Amino acid sequence: MQKTLKDIGEFGLITTIESILKGQRGVRGLRLGIGDDAASLVPRQGYELLVTCDSVVEGIHYFPEFIGPKDLGRRAMVLNISDIGAMGGHPLYALISLGLKATTPVHHIEEMYRGFLVELSPFGAGVIGGNITRSENFSFIDITLIGEVEEGRVLRRSTARAGDAILVTGYPGQAAAGLELLLKGNGRGELVEHPLVQSYIRPRHRAREGKAIADTGCANAMIDISDGLLGDLAHICERSNVGALLIQEQLPVSDELRRGAASLGKSPYDFMFRASDDYELIITCDPGNIHSIRTAVSSICDVPLNEVGRIIDASEGIKLKLPDGRLEPVPPSGWDSFAG
Amino acid sequence: MQKTLKDIGEFGLITTIESILKGQRGVRGLRLGIGDDAASLVPRQGYELLVTCDSVVEGIHYFPEFIGPKDLGRRAMVLNISDIGAMGGHPLYALISLGLKATTPVHHIEEMYRGFLVELSPFGAGVIGGNITRSENFSFIDITLIGEVEEGRVLRRSTARAGDAILVTGYPGQAAAGLELLLKGNGRGELVEHPLVQSYIRPRHRAREGKAIADTGCANAMIDISDGLLGDLAHICERSNVGALLIQEQLPVSDELRRGAASLGKSPYDFMFRASDDYELIITCDPGNIHSIRTAVSSICDVPLNEVGRIIDASEGIKLKLPDGRLEPVPPSGWDSFAG
Repeated sequence: MQKTLKDIGEFGLITTIESILKGQRGVRGLRLGIGDDAASLVPRQGYELLVTCDSVVEGIHYFPEFIGPKDLGRRAMVLNISDIGAMGGHPLYALISLGLKATTPVHHIEEMYRGFLVELSPFGAGVIGGNITRSENFSFIDITLIGEVEEGRVLRRSTARAGDAILVTGYPGQAAAGLELLLKGNGRGELVEHPLVQSYIRPRHRAREGKAIADTGCANAMIDISDGLLGDLAHICERSNVGALLIQEQLPVSDELRRGAASLGKSPYDFMFRASDDYELIITCDPGNIHSIRTAVSSICDVPLNEVGRIIDASEGIKLKLPDGRLEPVPPSGWDSFAG
Repeated sequence: MQKTLKDIGEFGLITTIESILKGQRGVRGLRLGIGDDAASLVPRQGYELLVTCDSVVEGIHYFPEFIGPKDLGRRAMVLNISDIGAMGGHPLYALISLGLKATTPVHHIEEMYRGFLVELSPFGAGVIGGNITRSENFSFIDITLIGEVEEGRVLRRSTARAGDAILVTGYPGQAAAGLELLLKGNGRGELVEHPLVQSYIRPRHRAREGKAIADTGCANAMIDISDGLLGDLAHICERSNVGALLIQEQLPVSDELRRGAASLGKSPYDFMFRASDDYELIITCDPGNIHSIRTAVSSICDVPLNEVGRIIDASEGIKLKLPDGRLEPVPPSGWDSFAG
């Protein structure tokens, strides 16, 4: 029978985790990692520290029947790495706070930590601390991630300007469509290899691309997409006090999303606009800087970078230009955790 | 009818929280607080950053029928401040990750945030970020707290030496006794003003005392007590590879604990040794340095500082010297979240 947390106890689990983390390379500036009341680190001069936290809750953000523990660990880390990348930063130090059911198999937690490390290692980043507590009925993973960025290079969501071009990486909406395929497909089985399902289970961050964009000094604002293309564009508009005009014909729809949406009886835009954990980037910049930003992104990978519209005056709100030329006002329709 | 999170939604709640946090004074080194993908800060040169995280889960660490939302906020922050203080640090930046039921009244969250600020403000510290998510059945609060300490002044748990005196602040065990009074008392009522119950509901941290002790340079090791006096002494022994001899007659038992334990039909040591969230400090130091540490603590407040034993060789384990002179080996009996 497989061992559970109840069998080995909190301190047994800590020992297990520490032995996995021993495989980490040294993290830059770390003086003291796991094992004391707090971790200690010495930041680099000339750099700002970026700090973000995000949690995933069983039954709300993930379903154990659809995602294994290693992918779950990767996913939880990816969404935090994405936040650091969306500011133009490089992730370094992670703290993992887990709420776990006593019946959780120990090897699930080991796999989850391996998932964390798969995502952290390429950055020379590591787990430097955390907390483990028991929870009833459902588990949660809360990660705090600290990164660094050269002073003055931070890219905010509050600094878009009217006249800016709006750029988007990749194909937002694929993860939401993948989740719906899973929910309607009664379990994994042959679905697991579907490209849309893979987008949901193994999302990619664009942290390298985000840092490369910030390093150009050519972008005005940036955000990562987790509340949907419209939801996160609305965050930029609200914080920057601007509006936006999206041109539907320029929105990136992958063949997979088009086919997947059709098979679900929906439009691909239903998935692109609403909450979807794709972790792609929205960038705004002076139209004269598009080429520099395109060059920066293509130096990292061949993800498409599409110009999808313009930042306009706040008074004009957020509008979608349809293929027939009509302008449709669009309400921000992102993810609201508490919406009934 | 009072408004709940379901009524105002996630983004309504964020607006509510932001308006409470506007009352915060500026936090040293903070470039960018709440409202973007990550917060940004510029650390002071010559200082290390300390990072800790700790969560409290409804039904495991707190019971809403025993503690109001403001005290709950204070308590969750105190236990993190305590961890920073136990390293000799000064708390600065907090990130608050909440898992909340949709039925939670909005004003509970407002009160909780006021509780966070009551504890942070005296340090010039503030809330710089966080995350809100829905959870089912129970709520959780996960706090990451970042502090600073002069380079080289960090006090660890892994650096106790055989021959050190063991010092303890205050009266560990009072919070555990207070909790048991509450659990056996069928609700608050007249119990709420009981000093032991107050120790549980409104614990104090010793962060100022911890920093003053670190500043003397006279202590060898330090830890805060949350797993019980024995549990946390065992952490020091394990990490420092030493043993410990405790002298029962020197252990600090308050009159309240003595009376409260008697009324519960127990020994005060039952509460002092086992998990109890008192957030007092255990300090080890060269016996010649006791006076300096006593002076540092009394410069902050009049909490008692008792010498309760000696650090001994690892081979001797952890022992308790009873009043009749017998030596009793004691197993570490701290809090294990997953213990059946």
